[in-house]
Amino acid sequence: MDIEDSRDPRRDPIGVFDSGIGGLTVAAALKTLLPSETIFYIGDTARVPYGGKSRKTIERYGVEIGGLLLAEQAKIIVVACNTASALAVPRMTDVFKVPIQGVITPGAAAAVAATKSGRIGVIGTRATVSSGAYGKAIHAIDPKVRVFSEACPLLVPLIEEAMFEDPITDQVLERYLAPLLAQDIDTLVLGCTHYPLAREAIGRAAGPGVTLVDSAENCALAVKTLLEERQLGAPDDQLGRLDVALTDSTEGFLRTAQDALELEIGDVQLRTVQASE
Amino acid sequence: MDIEDSRDPRRDPIGVFDSGIGGLTVAAALKTLLPSETIFYIGDTARVPYGGKSRKTIERYGVEIGGLLLAEQAKIIVVACNTASALAVPRMTDVFKVPIQGVITPGAAAAVAATKSGRIGVIGTRATVSSGAYGKAIHAIDPKVRVFSEACPLLVPLIEEAMFEDPITDQVLERYLAPLLAQDIDTLVLGCTHYPLAREAIGRAAGPGVTLVDSAENCALAVKTLLEERQLGAPDDQLGRLDVALTDSTEGFLRTAQDALELEIGDVQLRTVQASE
Repeated sequence: MDIEDSRDPRRDPIGVFDSGIGGLTVAAALKTLLPSETIFYIGDTARVPYGGKSRKTIERYGVEIGGLLLAEQAKIIVVACNTASALAVPRMTDVFKVPIQGVITPGAAAAVAATKSGRIGVIGTRATVSSGAYGKAIHAIDPKVRVFSEACPLLVPLIEEAMFEDPITDQVLERYLAPLLAQDIDTLVLGCTHYPLAREAIGRAAGPGVTLVDSAENCALAVKTLLEERQLGAPDDQLGRLDVALTDSTEGFLRTAQDALELEIGDVQLRTVQASE
Repeated sequence: MDIEDSRDPRRDPIGVFDSGIGGLTVAAALKTLLPSETIFYIGDTARVPYGGKSRKTIERYGVEIGGLLLAEQAKIIVVACNTASALAVPRMTDVFKVPIQGVITPGAAAAVAATKSGRIGVIGTRATVSSGAYGKAIHAIDPKVRVFSEACPLLVPLIEEAMFEDPITDQVLERYLAPLLAQDIDTLVLGCTHYPLAREAIGRAAGPGVTLVDSAENCALAVKTLLEERQLGAPDDQLGRLDVALTDSTEGFLRTAQDALELEIGDVQLRTVQASE
Protein backbone atom coordinates (compact mmCIF):
# COMPACT_ATOMS: atom_id res chain seq x y z
CA MET A 1 0.00 0.00 0.00
CA ASP A 2 1.19 3.46 -0.83
CA ILE A 3 1.63 5.16 2.52
CA GLU A 4 0.99 8.61 1.13
CA ASP A 5 -2.37 7.56 -0.31
CA SER A 6 -3.58 6.39 3.10
CA ARG A 7 -3.62 9.96 4.40
CA ASP A 8 -7.03 11.60 4.38
CA PRO A 9 -6.40 15.22 3.32
CA ARG A 10 -9.67 16.28 4.97
CA ARG A 11 -8.01 15.55 8.31
CA ASP A 12 -5.11 17.88 7.53
CA PRO A 13 -4.95 21.04 9.59
CA ILE A 14 -6.07 24.52 8.72
CA GLY A 15 -2.87 26.58 8.76
CA VAL A 16 -3.24 29.96 10.42
CA PHE A 17 -0.57 32.62 10.24
CA ASP A 18 -0.13 35.89 12.12
CA SER A 19 2.79 38.17 12.91
CA GLY A 20 2.17 37.52 16.59
CA ILE A 21 -0.72 36.40 18.73
CA GLY A 22 -3.47 38.74 17.48
CA GLY A 23 -4.56 36.14 14.92
CA LEU A 24 -5.69 33.90 17.76
CA THR A 25 -8.93 35.92 17.54
CA VAL A 26 -9.40 34.29 14.12
CA ALA A 27 -8.34 30.87 15.46
CA ALA A 28 -10.98 31.25 18.19
CA ALA A 29 -13.69 32.03 15.59
CA LEU A 30 -12.60 29.02 13.50
CA LYS A 31 -12.75 26.72 16.54
CA THR A 32 -16.27 27.85 17.35
CA LEU A 33 -17.56 27.52 13.78
CA LEU A 34 -15.61 24.39 12.80
CA PRO A 35 -15.07 22.31 15.96
CA SER A 36 -13.91 19.23 14.00
CA GLU A 37 -11.03 21.05 12.34
CA THR A 38 -7.49 20.89 13.65
CA ILE A 39 -5.78 24.26 13.52
CA PHE A 40 -2.04 24.75 13.28
CA TYR A 41 -1.21 28.33 14.19
CA ILE A 42 2.15 30.02 13.63
CA GLY A 43 2.88 33.41 15.21
CA ASP A 44 6.02 35.10 13.91
CA THR A 45 6.88 36.50 17.33
CA ALA A 46 10.61 36.71 16.45
CA ARG A 47 9.83 39.46 13.94
CA VAL A 48 6.62 40.97 15.32
CA PRO A 49 5.30 43.60 14.63
CA TYR A 50 4.83 43.69 10.85
CA GLY A 51 2.75 46.88 10.92
CA GLY A 52 5.56 49.38 10.28
CA LYS A 53 7.53 47.29 7.79
CA SER A 54 7.73 47.35 3.99
CA ARG A 55 5.77 45.31 1.44
CA LYS A 56 8.89 43.45 0.28
CA THR A 57 9.80 42.36 3.80
CA ILE A 58 6.22 41.36 4.67
CA GLU A 59 5.94 39.36 1.41
CA ARG A 60 9.11 37.46 2.29
CA TYR A 61 7.86 36.74 5.82
CA GLY A 62 4.51 35.56 4.43
CA VAL A 63 6.14 33.10 2.04
CA GLU A 64 8.47 31.81 4.79
CA ILE A 65 5.70 31.20 7.33
CA GLY A 66 3.48 29.78 4.59
CA GLY A 67 6.23 27.24 3.87
CA LEU A 68 6.32 26.21 7.53
CA LEU A 69 2.53 25.72 7.51
CA LEU A 70 2.74 23.58 4.35
CA ALA A 71 5.36 21.47 6.09
CA GLU A 72 2.60 20.82 8.65
CA GLN A 73 0.36 19.58 5.77
CA ALA A 74 -1.90 22.63 5.91
CA LYS A 75 -4.82 22.16 3.49
CA ILE A 76 -5.56 25.89 3.47
CA ILE A 77 -3.63 28.89 4.74
CA VAL A 78 -5.52 31.55 6.66
CA VAL A 79 -3.62 34.82 6.85
CA ALA A 80 -5.01 35.99 10.18
CA CYS A 81 -3.09 39.26 10.13
CA ASN A 82 -4.40 42.35 8.40
CA THR A 83 -0.96 43.69 7.51
CA ALA A 84 0.07 40.40 5.90
CA SER A 85 -3.39 40.05 4.27
CA ALA A 86 -3.03 43.53 2.78
CA LEU A 87 0.55 43.06 1.57
CA ALA A 88 1.56 39.39 1.30
CA VAL A 89 -1.55 37.51 0.11
CA PRO A 90 -1.05 38.27 -3.63
CA ARG A 91 2.52 36.90 -3.48
CA MET A 92 1.47 33.88 -1.40
CA THR A 93 -1.33 33.14 -3.89
CA ASP A 94 1.27 33.25 -6.68
CA VAL A 95 3.59 30.71 -5.10
CA PHE A 96 1.35 28.30 -3.16
CA LYS A 97 -1.21 25.88 -4.59
CA VAL A 98 -3.39 25.61 -1.47
CA PRO A 99 -6.12 28.24 -1.09
CA ILE A 100 -5.03 31.38 0.76
CA GLN A 101 -7.69 33.19 2.76
CA GLY A 102 -6.93 36.65 4.15
CA VAL A 103 -9.00 38.74 6.54
CA ILE A 104 -9.49 41.88 4.43
CA THR A 105 -12.20 40.66 2.05
CA PRO A 106 -14.39 39.16 4.81
CA GLY A 107 -13.94 42.31 6.92
CA ALA A 108 -14.87 44.52 3.98
CA ALA A 109 -18.00 42.44 3.26
CA ALA A 110 -19.07 42.64 6.90
CA ALA A 111 -18.58 46.42 6.92
CA VAL A 112 -20.62 46.94 3.75
CA ALA A 113 -23.39 44.77 5.22
CA ALA A 114 -23.35 46.76 8.46
CA THR A 115 -23.29 50.35 7.25
CA LYS A 116 -26.56 52.25 6.80
CA SER A 117 -25.10 55.68 6.07
CA GLY A 118 -22.49 54.40 3.64
CA ARG A 119 -19.67 55.98 5.69
CA ILE A 120 -17.16 53.41 6.98
CA GLY A 121 -14.10 54.01 9.14
CA VAL A 122 -11.09 51.67 9.13
CA ILE A 123 -8.37 51.49 11.78
CA GLY A 124 -5.23 49.43 11.34
CA THR A 125 -1.45 49.45 11.35
CA ARG A 126 0.47 51.99 9.30
CA ALA A 127 1.25 49.33 6.65
CA THR A 128 -2.39 48.17 6.36
CA VAL A 129 -3.73 51.70 6.13
CA SER A 130 -1.12 52.84 3.57
CA SER A 131 -1.89 49.82 1.41
CA GLY A 132 -5.47 51.05 0.94
CA ALA A 133 -6.52 47.38 0.90
CA TYR A 134 -9.79 47.89 2.81
CA GLY A 135 -10.84 50.77 0.58
CA LYS A 136 -10.24 48.66 -2.53
CA ALA A 137 -12.07 45.64 -1.11
CA ILE A 138 -15.03 47.75 0.05
CA HIS A 139 -15.30 49.59 -3.27
CA ALA A 140 -15.18 46.28 -5.16
CA ILE A 141 -18.44 45.42 -3.34
CA ASP A 142 -20.02 48.89 -3.35
CA PRO A 143 -18.27 51.76 -5.10
CA LYS A 144 -20.62 54.34 -3.53
CA VAL A 145 -19.47 53.74 0.07
CA ARG A 146 -17.13 56.38 1.53
CA VAL A 147 -14.11 54.93 3.39
CA PHE A 148 -12.03 56.89 5.93
CA SER A 149 -8.96 55.31 7.51
CA GLU A 150 -6.58 56.04 10.32
CA ALA A 151 -3.32 54.31 11.24
CA CYS A 152 -3.12 53.48 14.98
CA PRO A 153 0.53 52.46 15.56
CA LEU A 154 0.33 52.57 19.37
CA LEU A 155 -2.67 50.26 19.71
CA VAL A 156 -0.80 46.97 19.22
CA PRO A 157 1.84 47.77 21.87
CA LEU A 158 -0.93 48.83 24.30
CA ILE A 159 -2.85 45.61 23.66
CA GLU A 160 0.29 43.49 24.00
CA GLU A 161 0.73 45.12 27.42
CA ALA A 162 -2.82 43.93 28.22
CA MET A 163 -3.83 47.57 28.82
CA PHE A 164 -7.39 46.87 27.65
CA GLU A 165 -8.96 48.92 30.43
CA ASP A 166 -6.69 51.87 31.00
CA PRO A 167 -7.09 55.65 30.83
CA ILE A 168 -3.95 55.85 28.65
CA THR A 169 -5.48 53.48 26.09
CA ASP A 170 -8.72 55.50 26.20
CA GLN A 171 -6.84 58.72 25.42
CA VAL A 172 -4.87 57.13 22.60
CA LEU A 173 -8.12 55.80 21.12
CA GLU A 174 -9.89 59.15 21.43
CA ARG A 175 -7.08 60.77 19.49
CA TYR A 176 -7.01 58.12 16.74
CA LEU A 177 -10.80 58.01 16.34
CA ALA A 178 -11.46 61.77 16.41
CA PRO A 179 -10.85 62.34 12.65
CA LEU A 180 -13.04 59.32 11.78
CA LEU A 181 -15.90 60.38 14.07
CA ALA A 182 -15.68 63.87 12.53
CA GLN A 183 -16.59 62.15 9.23
CA ASP A 184 -19.83 60.78 10.75
CA ILE A 185 -18.97 57.13 10.21
CA ASP A 186 -21.58 54.61 11.39
CA THR A 187 -19.34 51.53 11.03
CA LEU A 188 -15.77 50.97 12.16
CA VAL A 189 -13.62 48.12 10.84
CA LEU A 190 -11.14 46.76 13.41
CA GLY A 191 -8.52 46.29 10.72
CA CYS A 192 -5.95 44.48 12.85
CA THR A 193 -6.47 41.12 14.50
CA HIS A 194 -5.16 42.50 17.79
CA TYR A 195 -7.93 45.05 18.07
CA PRO A 196 -10.85 42.78 19.05
CA LEU A 197 -8.98 42.16 22.33
CA ALA A 198 -9.61 45.86 23.13
CA ARG A 199 -13.13 45.82 21.68
CA GLU A 200 -14.78 47.35 24.75
CA ALA A 201 -12.39 50.30 24.96
CA ILE A 202 -12.73 50.89 21.20
CA GLY A 203 -16.52 50.74 21.51
CA ARG A 204 -16.50 53.30 24.33
CA ALA A 205 -14.30 55.67 22.30
CA ALA A 206 -16.37 55.21 19.13
CA GLY A 207 -19.69 55.73 20.92
CA PRO A 208 -23.03 53.90 20.66
CA GLY A 209 -23.81 55.14 17.13
CA VAL A 210 -20.93 53.19 15.56
CA THR A 211 -21.07 49.47 14.75
CA LEU A 212 -17.75 47.68 15.26
CA VAL A 213 -16.85 45.09 12.63
CA ASP A 214 -14.06 42.61 13.03
CA SER A 215 -13.12 40.19 10.34
CA ALA A 216 -12.54 37.13 12.55
CA GLU A 217 -16.05 35.70 12.35
CA ASN A 218 -16.53 36.52 8.67
CA CYS A 219 -13.13 35.10 7.87
CA ALA A 220 -14.10 31.85 9.59
CA LEU A 221 -17.27 31.74 7.43
CA ALA A 222 -15.17 32.26 4.29
CA VAL A 223 -12.89 29.39 5.33
CA LYS A 224 -15.94 27.15 5.89
CA THR A 225 -17.22 27.92 2.37
CA LEU A 226 -13.81 27.30 0.82
CA LEU A 227 -13.43 23.94 2.57
CA GLU A 228 -16.94 22.89 1.47
CA GLU A 229 -16.28 23.91 -2.14
CA ARG A 230 -13.08 21.87 -2.23
CA GLN A 231 -14.57 19.00 -0.19
CA LEU A 232 -11.79 19.43 2.33
CA GLY A 233 -13.84 19.79 5.52
CA ALA A 234 -12.80 17.51 8.39
CA PRO A 235 -15.10 14.52 9.04
CA ASP A 236 -17.50 15.07 11.96
CA ASP A 237 -15.90 12.27 13.98
CA GLN A 238 -12.68 14.27 14.28
CA LEU A 239 -12.11 16.20 17.49
CA GLY A 240 -10.35 19.39 16.46
CA ARG A 241 -7.47 20.86 18.38
CA LEU A 242 -5.44 24.06 18.28
CA ASP A 243 -1.65 23.75 18.14
CA VAL A 244 0.52 26.82 18.31
CA ALA A 245 4.08 27.39 17.11
CA LEU A 246 5.95 30.63 17.72
CA THR A 247 9.18 31.82 16.14
CA ASP A 248 10.26 33.28 19.48
CA SER A 249 9.29 32.13 22.95
CA THR A 250 7.62 35.22 24.32
CA GLU A 251 5.07 33.52 26.50
CA GLY A 252 3.70 36.75 27.95
CA PHE A 253 1.87 37.67 24.75
CA LEU A 254 0.50 34.17 24.32
CA ARG A 255 -0.88 34.14 27.86
CA THR A 256 -2.52 37.55 27.35
CA ALA A 257 -4.37 36.39 24.24
CA GLN A 258 -5.20 32.98 25.67
CA ASP A 259 -6.72 34.54 28.80
CA ALA A 260 -8.65 37.18 26.88
CA LEU A 261 -10.07 34.63 24.43
CA GLU A 262 -10.49 31.74 26.90
CA LEU A 263 -8.72 29.53 24.37
CA GLU A 264 -7.67 25.96 24.97
CA ILE A 265 -4.30 25.48 23.32
CA GLY A 266 -2.73 22.06 22.74
CA ASP A 267 0.92 21.79 21.85
CA VAL A 268 3.08 24.95 21.92
CA GLN A 269 6.31 24.69 19.93
CA LEU A 270 9.19 26.93 18.98
CA ARG A 271 10.16 27.26 15.31
CA THR A 272 12.87 29.08 13.48
CA VAL A 273 12.40 30.91 10.19
CA GLN A 274 16.11 31.12 9.57
CA ALA A 275 16.82 29.20 6.38
CA SER A 276 20.47 28.73 7.37
CA GLU A 277 19.62 26.85 10.56
CA MET B 1 52.08 44.28 -4.75
CA ASP B 2 49.72 42.36 -2.56
CA ILE B 3 46.46 44.26 -2.79
CA GLU B 4 45.27 43.11 0.60
CA ASP B 5 48.38 44.44 2.32
CA SER B 6 47.84 47.90 0.88
CA ARG B 7 44.74 48.40 2.98
CA ASP B 8 45.33 50.46 6.12
CA PRO B 9 43.17 48.84 8.81
CA ARG B 10 43.11 52.12 10.73
CA ARG B 11 40.95 53.50 7.94
CA ASP B 12 38.41 50.70 8.33
CA PRO B 13 35.04 51.71 9.71
CA ILE B 14 33.69 51.41 13.22
CA GLY B 15 30.73 49.03 12.91
CA VAL B 16 27.70 50.08 14.90
CA PHE B 17 24.72 47.83 15.42
CA ASP B 18 21.25 48.50 16.77
CA SER B 19 17.86 46.82 16.49
CA GLY B 20 16.55 49.99 14.88
CA ILE B 21 17.49 53.63 14.83
CA GLY B 22 17.93 54.30 18.56
CA GLY B 23 21.63 53.49 18.29
CA LEU B 24 22.09 56.61 16.18
CA THR B 25 22.39 58.40 19.55
CA VAL B 26 25.63 56.42 19.99
CA ALA B 27 26.71 57.09 16.39
CA ALA B 28 26.19 60.82 17.03
CA ALA B 29 28.39 60.67 20.16
CA LEU B 30 31.08 58.78 18.20
CA LYS B 31 31.02 61.35 15.40
CA THR B 32 31.48 64.20 17.86
CA LEU B 33 34.31 62.52 19.76
CA LEU B 34 36.06 60.86 16.80
CA PRO B 35 35.45 63.03 13.71
CA SER B 36 38.08 61.19 11.63
CA GLU B 37 36.39 57.83 12.00
CA THR B 38 34.07 56.39 9.39
CA ILE B 39 31.05 54.73 10.93
CA PHE B 40 29.07 51.98 9.30
CA TYR B 41 25.73 51.63 11.06
CA ILE B 42 23.29 48.75 10.64
CA GLY B 43 19.76 49.01 12.05
CA ASP B 44 17.85 45.72 12.05
CA THR B 45 14.56 47.44 11.22
CA ALA B 46 13.14 44.27 9.65
CA ARG B 47 13.05 42.64 13.09
CA VAL B 48 12.81 45.64 15.42
CA PRO B 49 12.03 45.74 18.33
CA TYR B 50 14.30 43.27 20.18
CA GLY B 51 13.07 44.37 23.63
CA GLY B 52 10.41 41.71 24.12
CA LYS B 53 12.27 38.81 22.51
CA SER B 54 14.25 35.90 23.97
CA ARG B 55 18.00 35.61 24.61
CA LYS B 56 18.41 32.89 21.99
CA THR B 57 16.75 34.95 19.27
CA ILE B 58 18.65 38.13 20.20
CA GLU B 59 21.97 36.20 20.22
CA ARG B 60 21.24 34.92 16.71
CA TYR B 61 20.36 38.40 15.48
CA GLY B 62 23.55 39.82 17.03
CA VAL B 63 25.76 37.27 15.30
CA GLU B 64 24.00 37.83 11.97
CA ILE B 65 24.30 41.62 12.06
CA GLY B 66 27.88 41.31 13.36
CA GLY B 67 28.68 39.22 10.27
CA LEU B 68 27.27 41.95 8.01
CA LEU B 69 29.45 44.56 9.77
CA LEU B 70 32.55 42.38 9.38
CA ALA B 71 31.77 42.12 5.67
CA GLU B 72 32.09 45.93 5.71
CA GLN B 73 35.61 45.51 7.22
CA ALA B 74 34.53 46.77 10.65
CA LYS B 75 37.62 47.05 12.91
CA ILE B 76 35.45 47.08 16.03
CA ILE B 77 31.77 46.34 16.62
CA VAL B 78 29.80 48.70 18.84
CA VAL B 79 26.57 47.16 20.06
CA ALA B 80 24.58 50.39 20.36
CA CYS B 81 21.48 48.65 21.68
CA ASN B 82 20.99 47.91 25.35
CA THR B 83 18.92 44.78 24.75
CA ALA B 84 21.57 43.31 22.44
CA SER B 85 24.36 44.50 24.78
CA ALA B 86 22.66 42.77 27.70
CA LEU B 87 21.94 39.52 25.85
CA ALA B 88 24.11 39.08 22.73
CA VAL B 89 27.54 40.55 23.58
CA PRO B 90 28.86 37.41 25.34
CA ARG B 91 28.00 35.26 22.31
CA MET B 92 29.39 37.85 19.87
CA THR B 93 32.62 38.01 21.89
CA ASP B 94 32.86 34.21 21.65
CA VAL B 95 32.59 34.10 17.87
CA PHE B 96 34.22 37.30 16.59
CA LYS B 97 37.89 38.29 16.84
CA VAL B 98 37.36 42.06 16.62
CA PRO B 99 36.67 43.87 19.89
CA ILE B 100 32.98 44.10 20.81
CA GLN B 101 31.90 47.15 22.80
CA GLY B 102 28.44 47.22 24.33
CA VAL B 103 26.66 50.11 26.05
CA ILE B 104 25.93 48.54 29.45
CA THR B 105 29.40 48.80 31.04
CA PRO B 106 29.89 52.46 30.05
CA GLY B 107 26.38 53.32 31.26
CA ALA B 108 26.97 51.54 34.56
CA ALA B 109 30.26 53.39 35.09
CA ALA B 110 28.60 56.74 34.37
CA ALA B 111 25.81 55.97 36.84
CA VAL B 112 28.19 54.98 39.63
CA ALA B 113 30.17 58.18 39.01
CA ALA B 114 26.98 60.26 39.13
CA THR B 115 25.21 58.90 42.20
CA LYS B 116 25.72 60.55 45.58
CA SER B 117 23.10 58.63 47.55
CA GLY B 118 24.11 55.25 46.13
CA ARG B 119 20.55 54.65 44.87
CA ILE B 120 20.36 54.19 41.08
CA GLY B 121 17.29 53.62 38.93
CA VAL B 122 17.44 51.85 35.58
CA ILE B 123 14.79 51.96 32.85
CA GLY B 124 14.93 49.76 29.77
CA THR B 125 13.09 47.20 27.66
CA ARG B 126 11.61 44.11 29.26
CA ALA B 127 14.52 41.98 27.96
CA THR B 128 17.21 44.38 29.27
CA VAL B 129 15.59 44.69 32.69
CA SER B 130 14.98 40.94 33.06
CA SER B 131 18.61 40.25 32.18
CA GLY B 132 19.75 42.19 35.26
CA ALA B 133 22.76 43.30 33.20
CA TYR B 134 22.91 46.85 34.62
CA GLY B 135 22.70 45.61 38.20
CA LYS B 136 25.58 43.19 37.58
CA ALA B 137 27.71 45.82 35.83
CA ILE B 138 27.05 48.41 38.56
CA HIS B 139 27.78 45.95 41.38
CA ALA B 140 31.02 44.91 39.67
CA ILE B 141 32.15 48.54 40.14
CA ASP B 142 30.55 49.20 43.53
CA PRO B 143 28.76 46.39 45.35
CA LYS B 144 27.25 48.80 47.89
CA VAL B 145 25.11 50.71 45.38
CA ARG B 146 21.38 49.86 45.39
CA VAL B 147 19.87 49.34 41.92
CA PHE B 148 16.13 49.54 41.14
CA SER B 149 14.87 48.79 37.66
CA GLU B 150 11.65 49.13 35.72
CA ALA B 151 10.76 47.81 32.27
CA CYS B 152 9.14 50.47 30.06
CA PRO B 153 7.77 48.55 27.06
CA LEU B 154 5.65 51.43 25.72
CA LEU B 155 8.47 53.99 25.56
CA VAL B 156 10.08 52.76 22.34
CA PRO B 157 6.78 52.80 20.38
CA LEU B 158 6.02 56.31 21.72
CA ILE B 159 9.49 57.54 20.72
CA GLU B 160 9.22 55.92 17.28
CA GLU B 161 6.00 57.89 16.86
CA ALA B 162 8.06 61.03 17.66
CA MET B 163 5.74 61.70 20.63
CA PHE B 164 8.57 63.34 22.59
CA GLU B 165 6.36 66.18 23.83
CA ASP B 166 2.97 64.71 24.48
CA PRO B 167 0.68 64.40 27.51
CA ILE B 168 0.27 60.68 26.77
CA THR B 169 4.05 60.13 26.94
CA ASP B 170 4.14 62.16 30.17
CA GLN B 171 1.49 59.93 31.77
CA VAL B 172 3.22 56.74 30.64
CA LEU B 173 6.51 58.03 32.10
CA GLU B 174 4.89 59.03 35.40
CA ARG B 175 3.54 55.53 35.77
CA TYR B 176 6.85 53.82 34.92
CA LEU B 177 8.96 56.11 37.11
CA ALA B 178 6.69 56.14 40.20
CA PRO B 179 8.13 52.94 41.76
CA LEU B 180 11.69 54.15 41.14
CA LEU B 181 11.05 57.62 42.59
CA ALA B 182 9.47 55.93 45.62
CA GLN B 183 12.91 54.37 46.20
CA ASP B 184 14.53 57.83 46.41
CA ILE B 185 16.90 57.30 43.49
CA ASP B 186 19.20 60.24 42.66
CA THR B 187 20.41 58.83 39.31
CA LEU B 188 18.46 57.31 36.44
CA VAL B 189 20.10 55.24 33.71
CA LEU B 190 18.41 55.59 30.32
CA GLY B 191 18.98 51.92 29.58
CA CYS B 192 17.78 51.94 25.98
CA THR B 193 19.39 53.89 23.15
CA HIS B 194 15.98 55.23 22.10
CA TYR B 195 15.41 56.99 25.40
CA PRO B 196 17.81 59.97 24.98
CA LEU B 197 15.49 61.14 22.19
CA ALA B 198 12.84 61.72 24.89
CA ARG B 199 15.35 63.04 27.41
CA GLU B 200 13.38 66.20 28.22
CA ALA B 201 10.14 64.39 28.95
CA ILE B 202 11.99 61.82 31.06
CA GLY B 203 13.74 64.63 32.95
CA ARG B 204 10.40 66.34 33.67
CA ALA B 205 8.89 63.10 34.98
CA ALA B 206 11.96 62.25 37.08
CA GLY B 207 12.18 65.73 38.60
CA PRO B 208 15.16 68.03 39.23
CA GLY B 209 16.66 65.83 41.98
CA VAL B 210 17.52 63.00 39.61
CA THR B 211 20.56 62.96 37.29
CA LEU B 212 19.90 61.29 33.93
CA VAL B 213 22.69 59.10 32.60
CA ASP B 214 22.82 57.81 29.08
CA SER B 215 25.50 55.50 27.86
CA ALA B 216 26.08 57.09 24.44
CA GLU B 217 28.84 59.51 25.44
CA ASN B 218 30.55 57.05 27.79
CA CYS B 219 30.34 54.32 25.17
CA ALA B 220 32.07 56.64 22.66
CA LEU B 221 34.85 57.22 25.22
CA ALA B 222 35.26 53.46 25.72
CA VAL B 223 35.54 53.02 21.92
CA LYS B 224 38.21 55.74 21.77
CA THR B 225 40.26 53.97 24.46
CA LEU B 226 39.92 50.60 22.73
CA LEU B 227 41.03 52.02 19.38
CA GLU B 228 44.03 53.72 21.02
CA GLU B 229 45.05 50.53 22.83
CA ARG B 230 44.96 48.55 19.60
CA GLN B 231 46.49 51.38 17.52
CA LEU B 232 43.44 51.26 15.28
CA GLY B 233 42.41 54.93 15.39
CA ALA B 234 41.85 56.58 12.01
CA PRO B 235 44.61 58.97 10.84
CA ASP B 236 43.77 62.64 11.42
CA ASP B 237 43.76 63.34 7.66
CA GLN B 238 40.70 61.15 7.22
CA LEU B 239 37.33 62.87 7.00
CA GLY B 240 34.91 60.53 8.75
CA ARG B 241 31.44 59.80 7.47
CA LEU B 242 28.36 57.97 8.68
CA ASP B 243 26.84 55.35 6.39
CA VAL B 244 23.62 53.63 7.34
CA ALA B 245 22.21 50.28 6.26
CA LEU B 246 18.78 49.07 7.32
CA THR B 247 17.31 45.59 7.02
CA ASP B 248 13.94 47.11 6.12
CA SER B 249 13.24 50.42 4.44
CA THR B 250 11.14 52.17 7.05
CA GLU B 251 12.33 55.67 6.38
CA GLY B 252 9.96 57.27 8.88
CA PHE B 253 12.00 56.07 11.87
CA LEU B 254 15.28 57.12 10.28
CA ARG B 255 13.98 60.62 9.60
CA THR B 256 12.72 60.95 13.19
CA ALA B 257 16.15 60.10 14.63
CA GLN B 258 18.05 62.11 12.04
CA ASP B 259 15.97 65.21 12.76
CA ALA B 260 16.17 64.82 16.54
CA LEU B 261 19.96 64.32 16.46
CA GLU B 262 20.74 66.73 13.61
CA LEU B 263 22.81 63.96 12.04
CA GLU B 264 24.40 64.11 8.62
CA ILE B 265 24.05 60.69 7.05
CA GLY B 266 25.93 59.62 3.91
CA ASP B 267 24.88 56.53 2.04
CA VAL B 268 21.67 54.74 3.10
CA GLN B 269 21.41 51.14 1.91
CA LEU B 270 19.04 48.24 2.30
CA ARG B 271 20.40 44.89 3.48
CA THR B 272 18.89 41.51 4.02
CA VAL B 273 19.70 39.20 6.91
CA GLN B 274 18.11 36.27 5.15
CA ALA B 275 20.86 33.74 4.51
CA SER B 276 18.89 32.15 1.67
CA GLU B 277 18.77 35.32 -0.41
